[in-house]
Amino acid sequence: MSIELFLGIDTGGTGIKYVVTGRDGVPLVRGEVATDPSSIAKSMIRLKEAVDTSLETIATGAGLQSVGVACAGIVDVAAGRLGRSPNLPGWQDSDLRGGVAAVFGGLPVTVANDVNGGLYGEFKHGAGRGCSNLVMIALGTGVGGGIIIDGRLVLGSHAGAGEIGHMVLDPAGPVCTCGGRGCLEAWAGSPGLLNLARGEVRAGNGGAALAELILSSGDSLTTRDLAKLASAGDAGARELFAIAGRRLGQAVGNLVNVLDPDRVIVGGGVAQAGDLILGPCREVVPQLVLAVEAKNVPVVPAELGTLAAAIGAASLAREMEHTG
Amino acid sequence: MSIELFLGIDTGGTGIKYVVTGRDGVPLVRGEVATDPSSIAKSMIRLKEAVDTSLETIATGAGLQSVGVACAGIVDVAAGRLGRSPNLPGWQDSDLRGGVAAVFGGLPVTVANDVNGGLYGEFKHGAGRGCSNLVMIALGTGVGGGIIIDGRLVLGSHAGAGEIGHMVLDPAGPVCTCGGRGCLEAWAGSPGLLNLARGEVRAGNGGAALAELILSSGDSLTTRDLAKLASAGDAGARELFAIAGRRLGQAVGNLVNVLDPDRVIVGGGVAQAGDLILGPCREVVPQLVLAVEAKNVPVVPAELGTLAAAIGAASLAREMEHTG
Repeated sequence: MSIELFLGIDTGGTGIKYVVTGRDGVPLVRGEVATDPSSIAKSMIRLKEAVDTSLETIATGAGLQSVGVACAGIVDVAAGRLGRSPNLPGWQDSDLRGGVAAVFGGLPVTVANDVNGGLYGEFKHGAGRGCSNLVMIALGTGVGGGIIIDGRLVLGSHAGAGEIGHMVLDPAGPVCTCGGRGCLEAWAGSPGLLNLARGEVRAGNGGAALAELILSSGDSLTTRDLAKLASAGDAGARELFAIAGRRLGQAVGNLVNVLDPDRVIVGGGVAQAGDLILGPCREVVPQLVLAVEAKNVPVVPAELGTLAAAIGAASLAREMEHTG
Repeated sequence: MSIELFLGIDTGGTGIKYVVTGRDGVPLVRGEVATDPSSIAKSMIRLKEAVDTSLETIATGAGLQSVGVACAGIVDVAAGRLGRSPNLPGWQDSDLRGGVAAVFGGLPVTVANDVNGGLYGEFKHGAGRGCSNLVMIALGTGVGGGIIIDGRLVLGSHAGAGEIGHMVLDPAGPVCTCGGRGCLEAWAGSPGLLNLARGEVRAGNGGAALAELILSSGDSLTTRDLAKLASAGDAGARELFAIAGRRLGQAVGNLVNVLDPDRVIVGGGVAQAGDLILGPCREVVPQLVLAVEAKNVPVVPAELGTLAAAIGAASLAREMEHTG
């Protein structure tokens, strides 16, 4: 009897993470190869070698059934195509599904945007297990997001849904990387948070420890440095995360008023600050949500970390058989 | 051969509007009876008399197949129950579906929130025809909303979705009826717009004609009065609608970034100001939307007016046979 296996891959500009799961979605093997941003085919050949080697460690007779691909950029799920993808210049505007299938012996391939892949992973195997309606916000350099309604990913009419980072929370707010003002990303993305810290110190606020950190770090300052200082109890650093957290709370409140999900998942590097940012967020949300029953929507950290999108892609691969 | 007919009703605190449609959804008869806010049964008996009289005007042998009920308040679609409904004290927290079926001879009955009924009407027979993904914003005394994703109404996990009026657009904005600050409703609901007008005049802005209108109207001032003055070219009155329109544009931009719909429909009394409010809204939206393909999402007025929810309810009744 052969064991049915499913390959999930998560493609970014530098690395391709992969997992192989059984029917229960639990990763049996995991790994990463370097992306060749100039070529899908070269990247996939490299990936297939690594996957084949990994599979040798699993019982004989095990066979890949299908492949799920989560990919950075604008993904047309129905057409299987990758549109704009700034970090994958040789991949963009091409037949992503066909390019993967060509290397993987014609296996069925399904594709998704990387944020949606991560959301789907959390939905099936992480912080969103058991939910029907979910919102995910990923706080990184950029702030991305994804939505599940009635168990299905919301893609939008032009694959443009989930740009939660560019919800405008105050048209007079700080300038965002998108050129706009007052987007969630301008407060809760890492460049926004670093700018906020530097601005506070320039204005003479935030206290001595924060000022010293910023002066000594210069351009190498990270949100992790700020979180470390805040975790140690520094009031100035804590207030930075509280400001970002309250703005995150405004965005979450708005999304709950619009979509009334079971749960809101917050992931990404900035979210590793944990309750420093989620605490102030959770204080704001019930004040903004109208429907009494929706006020106490749980706002929870993501659980699957950097493997979320690969795990989600494997789940999407596994579910292809239901949809044809 | 009997003709198949479908009854759609839209229940508010004062009146019950109804339409009877054929299989094509076109209303064959329409009418309205007074609501008895103390009793579903009394209201339905009154409605049934009116519907029966209306049906006598249609060919013999025509028969009602099912009933769709759009109702003000929190509606649990799956359970068929009405929850909170401030204007229908004798109806709330009751078995709405059963109460209607009891009077209508045990016909199949489906229920929906009134805003979702209106959205569904526009989706099937009005400004949203041919779309898969829609957002509707209804600008009235309150600002409500509804969402359709992949052809289905988004209800939320606690029947709380679509509260678009309470999206916070600036936490330091004007006080809203919900007790919060800077909600869309605080600018684009009629009390918000009237407050804005009075505030401008108190501050010595807005010019002589606006000041005179506000002084002479007192408490009887309406947004229609303001729209009339603006339509006549008064700069002060036009600026009021522009302020509300730009805030509407911020909300629409946020919703397009989150959901990427085919179209955004704006209805309700305040929207009768037409391009006075939609013009400034349409200018803002493309500046805020990130996905290039979604920037030019059409923002269009509702088409079905006050019959939208009854027509939508009849559509939901017609579609019951597909879902069991």
